[in-house]
Amino acid sequence: QNQATSNNTELPKITWQMATSWPLSLDTIFGGATVFAERVAQMSGGRFKISPKPAGDLAPPLEVLNVVKQGAVPCGHTAAYYYIGQNPAAAFGTAVPFGLTAQQQNTWLYEGEGLKLLQELYASQFGVIQFPAGSTGTQMGGWFRKEVSTINDLKGLKMRIPGLGGQVMSKLGVLVQNLPGGEIFQALQTGAIDAAEWVGPYDDEKLGLNKVAQYYYYPGWWEPGPTLEVQINLNAWKKLPVEYQQMIQTAAFEANQIMLARYEARNYEALQRLLQSGTQLRPYSDEILNAAKTSAFELYDEFAAKNADFKAIFENWQKFRDGVFTWSNLNQGSFERFVYKTLDTPSQGS
Amino acid sequence: QNQATSNNTELPKITWQMATSWPLSLDTIFGGATVFAERVAQMSGGRFKISPKPAGDLAPPLEVLNVVKQGAVPCGHTAAYYYIGQNPAAAFGTAVPFGLTAQQQNTWLYEGEGLKLLQELYASQFGVIQFPAGSTGTQMGGWFRKEVSTINDLKGLKMRIPGLGGQVMSKLGVLVQNLPGGEIFQALQTGAIDAAEWVGPYDDEKLGLNKVAQYYYYPGWWEPGPTLEVQINLNAWKKLPVEYQQMIQTAAFEANQIMLARYEARNYEALQRLLQSGTQLRPYSDEILNAAKTSAFELYDEFAAKNADFKAIFENWQKFRDGVFTWSNLNQGSFERFVYKTLDTPSQGS
Repeated sequence: QNQATSNNTELPKITWQMATSWPLSLDTIFGGATVFAERVAQMSGGRFKISPKPAGDLAPPLEVLNVVKQGAVPCGHTAAYYYIGQNPAAAFGTAVPFGLTAQQQNTWLYEGEGLKLLQELYASQFGVIQFPAGSTGTQMGGWFRKEVSTINDLKGLKMRIPGLGGQVMSKLGVLVQNLPGGEIFQALQTGAIDAAEWVGPYDDEKLGLNKVAQYYYYPGWWEPGPTLEVQINLNAWKKLPVEYQQMIQTAAFEANQIMLARYEARNYEALQRLLQSGTQLRPYSDEILNAAKTSAFELYDEFAAKNADFKAIFENWQKFRDGVFTWSNLNQGSFERFVYKTLDTPSQGS
Repeated sequence: QNQATSNNTELPKITWQMATSWPLSLDTIFGGATVFAERVAQMSGGRFKISPKPAGDLAPPLEVLNVVKQGAVPCGHTAAYYYIGQNPAAAFGTAVPFGLTAQQQNTWLYEGEGLKLLQELYASQFGVIQFPAGSTGTQMGGWFRKEVSTINDLKGLKMRIPGLGGQVMSKLGVLVQNLPGGEIFQALQTGAIDAAEWVGPYDDEKLGLNKVAQYYYYPGWWEPGPTLEVQINLNAWKKLPVEYQQMIQTAAFEANQIMLARYEARNYEALQRLLQSGTQLRPYSDEILNAAKTSAFELYDEFAAKNADFKAIFENWQKFRDGVFTWSNLNQGSFERFVYKTLDTPSQGS
């Protein structure tokens, strides 16, 4: 990157607005943007101030990339897969169905070639540079008004599910919508949709999804470890002193870690509360999981055949996935299988 | 914490030496110290320079805490469990047998009460403040010259294994030693020990352990997600401007994440090379795992009965572990079981 130089003494005072895709109420995912901005401010002695704004303030929730790309706002905090309409390869920046857990995704991004390839894509297509700045951990498989045991049960259902997960669901007969987080409750309540996924117990409880749907499925096979990201307009980035560029990158690491820890720390207790409130926990059937996995890899082949960016990133990702899955299954997997085998599965009224 | 103030304009030039427990050859674990120091330098425009030195340069490898405590060196990069002789509760700062994976450990440290409790312990007992600054991920279960299938096979074996894992092995009849990483190869080669564990395929190959022992066991049930840490003398810490205090904390997050990603990215290919060189991969038997787990929790009860620090941290940790294990098993666990079920286990000559 073409980085500005600095005389290391008197750093400039800079104030940036930050567009986000998140409602203020979600201290986990909006909290990732807050942690990032606070750290940059603290490390710069208050000279570099970034102000994250909730969805809608500076841009519609699913158009953060667009305002950053245009330079109307210097930076944003959002999910890459909201923008697969512009390039389907952006999906790998968040999550793809049957892909990587949070630890594996971070490994591919930071010490595989993931982030390098995705940054090249953003620079050439959007004039934007991005850094991972949050992870939700493995998401839940969403809320349904009726039980879904077979592929047939999915056909014709109207469901809120973004990214390539939505496209896989579409192949299985689901009528897919992408709504911002703040609009899901009302759509479920009014019956505009029959099912929806957001993140997991802690966020979903805050959005009130348990009040408008009874069946809570797991796992979220389309988002085993999704990454959220800070996006910065490249022209704005290049004008920053190198110290500020480094503070942004390092603060993004902290935001990435803290958001994941916050979700993982709070989801268990929230799940207990949901079960006490009447939520019915259900595992996805092998029939649905197997059909979804087949459809997912067919979809990847279709995109790879018509989009060179997707093909290059997919091939790199798939080779990495094969190796890390084998390693994770062997070592951490055998440890987890041993220590979890005496646990009960939480359930309510199953 | 009692933090110094700053006028936010002209930050002081500071140069610190950093003692570490690691040989220079291990770009993973020594690399954690390097990443940390480089980020602090870059964010401060080169004004705050920290120079990590390999084991032995500033302190013997297992005495980093001591020189930092005394103020002979302002900071170090090491593993808390090397110092359980001073307080057994320090073990929770690294790893305890049948404990937390890397993701769970970070969750407990950052968003549970783990780091808060451990920082109180260090402040009162050592006059030191510490920050997580590295993780190895789930370690392997060590190298043995002969197969160990039963508890009887373990009795009388001389093994290098530090921390509470060593104390559990001791309960099972193993003669335990704690050697620094740089001395393991020679001890195995000369027959001074019969078995040893270090970290995992990538590091272990660099240390040459496959050349002096044939059987490579998994999983490392005593270190499912060990944390390495930066330790700073509290008097030195309190003299730093707040900007530098924040740079240290945020750079430690990056070091924590990068070390884990580096291990996870490199272990799979290293394992393939080890298997090609004749290494024999073996799972621990259920007999050994079950006996070790029972001994581990007996050991925790014994320490809790005689050490109030251990008791307080153990009780907090155990409650957290119960919840996060149930959540991890339900959601991420069911995802991983589905995607891994078609994988083969790597093996050679089993």
